[in-house]
Amino acid sequence: MNIQFTYLPGDGIGPEVGAAALFVLETVSDVFAHSLQIEAQLIGGAAIDAGEKPLPDATFESCQRTGAILLGAVGGPKWDHLTGADRPELGSLLPLRKRLNLYANIRPCKPYDGLLDRAPLKRDRLEGTDFVVMRELTGGIYFGAKGRDAGGAYDECRYSEAEVERIAIKAFDLAMQRRRKVTSVDKSNVLETSRLWRETVEQVSRRYPEVTLEHLLVDAMTMHMLTRPTDFDVVLTENMFGDILTDEASVLCGSMGVIPSASLSDGTIGLFEPIHGSAPDIAGQGKANPIAMILSAAWMLRLSFGLEAEASAIEAAVAGALDASEVTGDLGGALTTAEVGRAVAQRVRNAA
Amino acid sequence: MNIQFTYLPGDGIGPEVGAAALFVLETVSDVFAHSLQIEAQLIGGAAIDAGEKPLPDATFESCQRTGAILLGAVGGPKWDHLTGADRPELGSLLPLRKRLNLYANIRPCKPYDGLLDRAPLKRDRLEGTDFVVMRELTGGIYFGAKGRDAGGAYDECRYSEAEVERIAIKAFDLAMQRRRKVTSVDKSNVLETSRLWRETVEQVSRRYPEVTLEHLLVDAMTMHMLTRPTDFDVVLTENMFGDILTDEASVLCGSMGVIPSASLSDGTIGLFEPIHGSAPDIAGQGKANPIAMILSAAWMLRLSFGLEAEASAIEAAVAGALDASEVTGDLGGALTTAEVGRAVAQRVRNAA
Ligand SMILES: CC(C)[C@H](C(=O)O)[C@@H](O)C(=O)O
Ligand SMILES: CC(C)[C@H](C(=O)O)[C@@H](O)C(=O)O
Repeated sequence: MNIQFTYLPGDGIGPEVGAAALFVLETVSDVFAHSLQIEAQLIGGAAIDAGEKPLPDATFESCQRTGAILLGAVGGPKWDHLTGADRPELGSLLPLRKRLNLYANIRPCKPYDGLLDRAPLKRDRLEGTDFVVMRELTGGIYFGAKGRDAGGAYDECRYSEAEVERIAIKAFDLAMQRRRKVTSVDKSNVLETSRLWRETVEQVSRRYPEVTLEHLLVDAMTMHMLTRPTDFDVVLTENMFGDILTDEASVLCGSMGVIPSASLSDGTIGLFEPIHGSAPDIAGQGKANPIAMILSAAWMLRLSFGLEAEASAIEAAVAGALDASEVTGDLGGALTTAEVGRAVAQRVRNAA
Repeated sequence: MNIQFTYLPGDGIGPEVGAAALFVLETVSDVFAHSLQIEAQLIGGAAIDAGEKPLPDATFESCQRTGAILLGAVGGPKWDHLTGADRPELGSLLPLRKRLNLYANIRPCKPYDGLLDRAPLKRDRLEGTDFVVMRELTGGIYFGAKGRDAGGAYDECRYSEAEVERIAIKAFDLAMQRRRKVTSVDKSNVLETSRLWRETVEQVSRRYPEVTLEHLLVDAMTMHMLTRPTDFDVVLTENMFGDILTDEASVLCGSMGVIPSASLSDGTIGLFEPIHGSAPDIAGQGKANPIAMILSAAWMLRLSFGLEAEASAIEAAVAGALDASEVTGDLGGALTTAEVGRAVAQRVRNAA
């Protein structure tokens, strides 16, 4: 098939890890007899430096048209003097999520055995951990009214029942394909939005009698995630809590550098990106770990194109590379970013 | 001296751990020749069950008059059917904080060596950890406008410059007495309140040239707290982020059951309470660990009454009891709640 997608390398290490992922995708399309049609576009600081807005019209138009987006990372201290919507993150990532209605952000927490000893947590506590965070991505305090007035600064958090309902449905649908448990995280002892959240999740849960539902307060969840990580299956939460909890969860995996993410809407439209940032301190040195980006590309094949065998081939190749320590220095290996891409691609080819 | 304070046992295990702490206080006042004047008052669910409001007028009046408050815990599933200000937490704890202007909440993270192996984190990562979280407690999304309208539910987060400035001053003052480092945590890449926060903290930091200031985004902080806990000294943050981060920090200590907290205003007025909750599942069984409550009483002696030697005597006795495993079952010991109180009191007496 014709795999047409929008490629947004972005800033910092984005272009490097992106190149490694494209190399893997090219090998996959060769092995599986597909054709690749890559629409590379500017975003974030790279767009600003080219005299464009952080989210250029051409970029948005391409994203909307292809409906499949592979993104590296945006932002960095170089653009720290900019404010508000002029900033790379605020001016590109958030409007892209909102305008494409990518309301369901999925981030896995399933540590690779070979990385368990890198985590600050004890191995025996982590073994068997396998959950997914379903984060609401287009509502809440990220997108409410914000500004300054005589009283200081304000940010409004808002949720409608419909917004909560649709993300809850995604979480329960996912739980049905997994171990049938949803842990909904809120702060309903204080926030009105959380009380609406909890009520709505309760309502949706009645349509899924096979799924066990548990509620946890966000403060308690930061503990439970560390003390009983193996107990979770699908963790459902709102935008800001999801931002916080997914970063905490990444520590369980031993490295941020291996965690992909998908931001989905209804249908097959999706944005796929590593959960790590642009890491400007190591950009351009060939040190960046491309695994999260390569796995994001695999998720794109699976979720936007329905190419399950191809996605699985990449994931198996990554697991093999990790086992063989064909990795970058952050994971104790000796390979460059590009070499990891080639090693994974070679494993895809060998397995075919 | 006459140690006059308001005692609010509250709900669940509150009265049990409270009784153990009072026993220790009585011993201390005997040993150090003080007199105790305890004003016991109702709060939370216990007040509701007695036909009162969650924060009865007599309770508030006593708190205001004594200015020194020792609180057990409030709330529990028994009152889960209540909503809004009728709930124990929302109707008592939050208005108490707000009306007494207890804007500075301090929670320590300094694991006892004997508890390190209970933490899910590896011992070598934790050794040397010693930081304090300074949480803003009377502003932010906890106290902003909240409600429902045609669009759904909303909660407003608000901060004035003056609110940020006074808590920042507390944090820098504390850092001057410690290792001279402040880590300010916000979400300034998304929130306007966080941008005001960061600007104001920067301004305050200019008055403390000896103190090193670092800024971290809240999502990143959940990772750094686990990967480099020994790097922090004073962690300064707003109300909601502080709620989340202090629970995460408690995991580093191996147990929530040993962490006290102080909520302070200007001057000596203060509320002292364990960071754990009311644990209704184990209430009334003599299983509850009273150490956090006993340490909260020590903090009250130090911070509201200036009784440093007395506070230190309690802390040393607790450390001794932990070393000797004179503890409850949650920490691997065989003592009841009351027995732990007596063991700590005996150690205070023996050391005198
Ligand atoms: C870059 C930032 C705006 C973003 C967020 O807060 O959502 C990031 O932390 C993430 O989790 O994708
Ligand atoms: C009980 C609840 C309202 C409270 C809070 O969120 O502040 C508690 O979690 C705390 O940290 O003291």
